[in-house]
Amino acid sequence: MTGSTPHASFTADDYKARMERAARQAAGAGLAGLLVAPGPDLVWLTGYTPTAVTERLTLLVLAAGRDPVLVVPTLEAPDAERAPGASSLTLRDWTDGKDPYAATAALLDTAGRFGISDNTWAMHLLGLQQALPGTSYASLTEALPMLRAVKDAAELQLLAAAGAAADAAFEEIRAVPFAGRRESDVAADLAALLRRSGHSQVDFTIVASGPNGANPHHEADDRVIERGDMVVLDFGGLVDGYGSDTSRTVHVGEPSDEERRVHDLVREAQEAGFRAVRPDAACQEVDRAARAVITDAGYGEYFIHRTGHGIGVTTHEPPYMIEGEEQPLVPGMCFSVEPGIYLPGRFGVRIEDIVTVTEEGGRRLNNTTREMVIVD
Amino acid sequence: MTGSTPHASFTADDYKARMERAARQAAGAGLAGLLVAPGPDLVWLTGYTPTAVTERLTLLVLAAGRDPVLVVPTLEAPDAERAPGASSLTLRDWTDGKDPYAATAALLDTAGRFGISDNTWAMHLLGLQQALPGTSYASLTEALPMLRAVKDAAELQLLAAAGAAADAAFEEIRAVPFAGRRESDVAADLAALLRRSGHSQVDFTIVASGPNGANPHHEADDRVIERGDMVVLDFGGLVDGYGSDTSRTVHVGEPSDEERRVHDLVREAQEAGFRAVRPDAACQEVDRAARAVITDAGYGEYFIHRTGHGIGVTTHEPPYMIEGEEQPLVPGMCFSVEPGIYLPGRFGVRIEDIVTVTEEGGRRLNNTTREMVIVD
Repeated sequence: MTGSTPHASFTADDYKARMERAARQAAGAGLAGLLVAPGPDLVWLTGYTPTAVTERLTLLVLAAGRDPVLVVPTLEAPDAERAPGASSLTLRDWTDGKDPYAATAALLDTAGRFGISDNTWAMHLLGLQQALPGTSYASLTEALPMLRAVKDAAELQLLAAAGAAADAAFEEIRAVPFAGRRESDVAADLAALLRRSGHSQVDFTIVASGPNGANPHHEADDRVIERGDMVVLDFGGLVDGYGSDTSRTVHVGEPSDEERRVHDLVREAQEAGFRAVRPDAACQEVDRAARAVITDAGYGEYFIHRTGHGIGVTTHEPPYMIEGEEQPLVPGMCFSVEPGIYLPGRFGVRIEDIVTVTEEGGRRLNNTTREMVIVD
Repeated sequence: MTGSTPHASFTADDYKARMERAARQAAGAGLAGLLVAPGPDLVWLTGYTPTAVTERLTLLVLAAGRDPVLVVPTLEAPDAERAPGASSLTLRDWTDGKDPYAATAALLDTAGRFGISDNTWAMHLLGLQQALPGTSYASLTEALPMLRAVKDAAELQLLAAAGAAADAAFEEIRAVPFAGRRESDVAADLAALLRRSGHSQVDFTIVASGPNGANPHHEADDRVIERGDMVVLDFGGLVDGYGSDTSRTVHVGEPSDEERRVHDLVREAQEAGFRAVRPDAACQEVDRAARAVITDAGYGEYFIHRTGHGIGVTTHEPPYMIEGEEQPLVPGMCFSVEPGIYLPGRFGVRIEDIVTVTEEGGRRLNNTTREMVIVD
């Protein structure tokens, strides 16, 4: 799971307001409450991240008509008490050997429907379902997909800083030697550059050279990069608790005409996706705009993933830029626009920026060149 | 969540045998199959760890009467095909926009009861429950708690190597200066030493000095360690995919008589717990033996956690050494024996070794001195 760290720039009041917003949205969606386990939702709502996520239940209960309660193992209560949002929370601790589901059940409407954070462990959901057979559950993202999607000014600033940090890493990685080195060596350089530019956590450093580039999720392996290779670079992580994620495709030495044509096409598709970003446009319009460029040029079958995903306290969250997603864009939303073309056995190209929605249209949080960069 | 990495020393046949063992145990427990999401169970069964655990469903299906199937996002199929256990798996990939729960449901008995890995995301369990309303589920650990508990010879060797690596880190950390430095500085030293001794992943580096030691799960903070402090050190992580976890309590300068007495008591309790380890003894006997020493000396109320937990591809798993756990010990099981005494506002002491069960009794995988070490 993509981890998260709380950020010092949010106050206890910020967390209180977020919990109130969540409770309001839950009520509006007909839910009796929200149940939130450690992970990005909990960090966003309370600033709290336990030392480790284990089989011991930690669960935030936002139930209608009562103040927020954090169910927490006794051992971890002292840490929870120091969480940035703790002043708005009542801690309900439980000791080893006791039943935490019974303790949680006592806080809940026995016939209610609850939103539960996506990444809550199945064993905990099963424990709740057994303790309260009359309850039902929806995944938090399905029930309230846009809960964390619209970023406030402080969050936008943090995401812009994360984007700039990733851009700084790209500016340096383009100067390192590629030919004759293993993908994993370049990936290690990239990770070090991300850390140096301010990332506390590196989530991915994809270096996909030559035919490996045709697998969109190839990470980096022992393949030795050769002169003449296209190399997809896709990297990101967390800076002060907020995510970065950018892709550029570079070429080792001079590209062929076809390589240049495919790269140009992806760049045009990325530009088209970016230009489709404006308030009230549906998410799927961003996907359609980018995809149309590639499909019209005859490469549609080689663009095998959605165009983008949201970003915030995780590097992967709603909203999704995908056919069928009719959610309207709202100023403050942040997401990737990352079309690609993947030619099996040959090479791949992907270009990705994080884009935020403003009243005037899209604003990019990544600003390195989208022209093909030639590396050595 | 505690991460895991596959280990090169296991063959495709090892993974095949583990999957067969799991399927047999599932059938024996009256289950129609097992559903296993990315995490320690999947890594143990198949050697596969996806690049990232996201909202996209990856699920191993071990269902009665069919070969193992791995449901996997199309994007990640090339990675899954390279998993060490892939030769025993049929891959069933699904593309963005399709319903992975329907695809999984087609593989399952529509009225069966399934074991599902504890850390499977709740959103995936909800998706399955909706696709197959006639099914029911039990957490894998509840259904088959001992699935991974008995280690084979290769696993024992890896756990012994992990223990030796943690011991090496302790031998070095006892030589660094403590007084006048922050807990977090010593914790950073400890993490660096763990990496240097072979840990690919550091899971925890607890440095709990003076009154902080009275919180068993205190990590390390800005408190400056003073002469006269007790300091609980509890650290571990993964070496070649297998866990280490050891605790020693050191003293900065000469301890008081009371500090020495409490440390001696914990050492005796740890020894008593260790001596209770033998085949067929119940797990709770290990807890009782350690606890009796502390209770008899009048400190029972200050020993506020169970005596131990299993270790393997995670640093925290069954079996648990806790009152009420009647599971008999079996040669090959590995777990911590870690009693402690926590005096609120004053100090804490914990001593922990990983112990494995042999025909002759317990064998320690940590072997640094359990006498109180004086540091500077």
